[in-house]
Amino acid sequence: MRKIRKQQTQHQQKVLLYCFFIHTGKDQPIMNLNKYIDHTLLKADATEAQIIQLCQEAVRYDFYAVCVNGCYVPLAAKHLRRSDVKIAAVAGFPLGAMPPQAKAFEARNAIENGANEIDMVINIGALKDGRYDEVLAELSQLAELCHSHDATLKVILETCLLTKKEIRKACELCVKANADFVKTSTGFDAGGATVEDITLMKKTVSGKAKIKASGGIRTLQDALRFIDAGADRLGCSAGAAIMEEALK
Amino acid sequence: MRKIRKQQTQHQQKVLLYCFFIHTGKDQPIMNLNKYIDHTLLKADATEAQIIQLCQEAVRYDFYAVCVNGCYVPLAAKHLRRSDVKIAAVAGFPLGAMPPQAKAFEARNAIENGANEIDMVINIGALKDGRYDEVLAELSQLAELCHSHDATLKVILETCLLTKKEIRKACELCVKANADFVKTSTGFDAGGATVEDITLMKKTVSGKAKIKASGGIRTLQDALRFIDAGADRLGCSAGAAIMEEALK
Repeated sequence: MRKIRKQQTQHQQKVLLYCFFIHTGKDQPIMNLNKYIDHTLLKADATEAQIIQLCQEAVRYDFYAVCVNGCYVPLAAKHLRRSDVKIAAVAGFPLGAMPPQAKAFEARNAIENGANEIDMVINIGALKDGRYDEVLAELSQLAELCHSHDATLKVILETCLLTKKEIRKACELCVKANADFVKTSTGFDAGGATVEDITLMKKTVSGKAKIKASGGIRTLQDALRFIDAGADRLGCSAGAAIMEEALK
Repeated sequence: MRKIRKQQTQHQQKVLLYCFFIHTGKDQPIMNLNKYIDHTLLKADATEAQIIQLCQEAVRYDFYAVCVNGCYVPLAAKHLRRSDVKIAAVAGFPLGAMPPQAKAFEARNAIENGANEIDMVINIGALKDGRYDEVLAELSQLAELCHSHDATLKVILETCLLTKKEIRKACELCVKANADFVKTSTGFDAGGATVEDITLMKKTVSGKAKIKASGGIRTLQDALRFIDAGADRLGCSAGAAIMEEALK
């Protein structure tokens, strides 16, 4: 057991060390690639064993967070309590079409169970309808709830369903509501993050919110492309494979 | 306006009349095909106009219910208040991976807003793990909640993710929890209803719960196949097209 722990520690140090020297090809060093990653498992049929493995990998590579469904927050909290890996829980996921009260209840429940971050889905239909007051009220309610519990709010826009104009508007509403992050995708609809969308989101929020790229990030090259385009966080289920690729 | 209303009434009568004479090819008349249908729109980007159209079609064809996301229950209630079309709202949808408390809150909120039926997703991971006590407790809580408000509980199994053994076990737990319906699919995962699964579910619940087939029901032939296999209700977004096909 002690031997395994020693090996793990050496492995972590190696990861950290190597990540200081990963380059995007633009002479911009990526410091601590591992700390960009929300190690994610949101599949409907995820089992306890898979969530435990997710947590173990997150500790091993010292990822920023795990991202899980609400029902697995207590399990993740138990397996991460001796680490500094955070827990992100989804709310109103993946359709974003729950009423604000239900999203708020879900978020509060997750925070009470140990979540440090909430990845909620914006009400996409309301956004498309131009019901901006409704969208803003919901986002503000969730931001207030999160911040009063020292939690971070990420707002998923599901960019693959939006026009460029809608992405810009959504970003403006997120900034106005004081959300911490705008995030591209759930990973459950037709498309994931694109460099073009990340660039647009980065430009629109103009430093007033951070950017999380998610959906379809499978390789080290994907990860570096999105970081290079301005992503502050990456949501991916392939976190371990990406780190192994970085360590080759 | 009066002319349109008269035409609609004639159309409804025609639908009802015709539906008495649709046959499955097994000399089993399908009485009121329209009353098998939950007219469904659950897409993340559904707009108010689309939900209003859904309600108008449901009134026109006198469907059993509309099935919508929670945020649209009040709008559907407003547009259906002069009809006997019911409102089904989803809960824990489509992943089923919210904690029981959050599913219950969402269901209660929908009922308070006017929903008559709750289509909830079972906790698929817990089922696969064999954590049957947890699954049963959640189902029982939701069944009690629904029944104390005169609402109907349908439990979505997401059959495409389950083995035959797991489908059987899920059906047994639903019956034990006193759920009103077992339902095949969310329509958001890899597969929808199959005749084989409907037959298995029908056999397992043995008259103690009703059956809803959903996911991929696009034609009159699909509808009749599932009714013939034992479905008591059909969830489909193609309800209007199916009725028009029946009226040809």
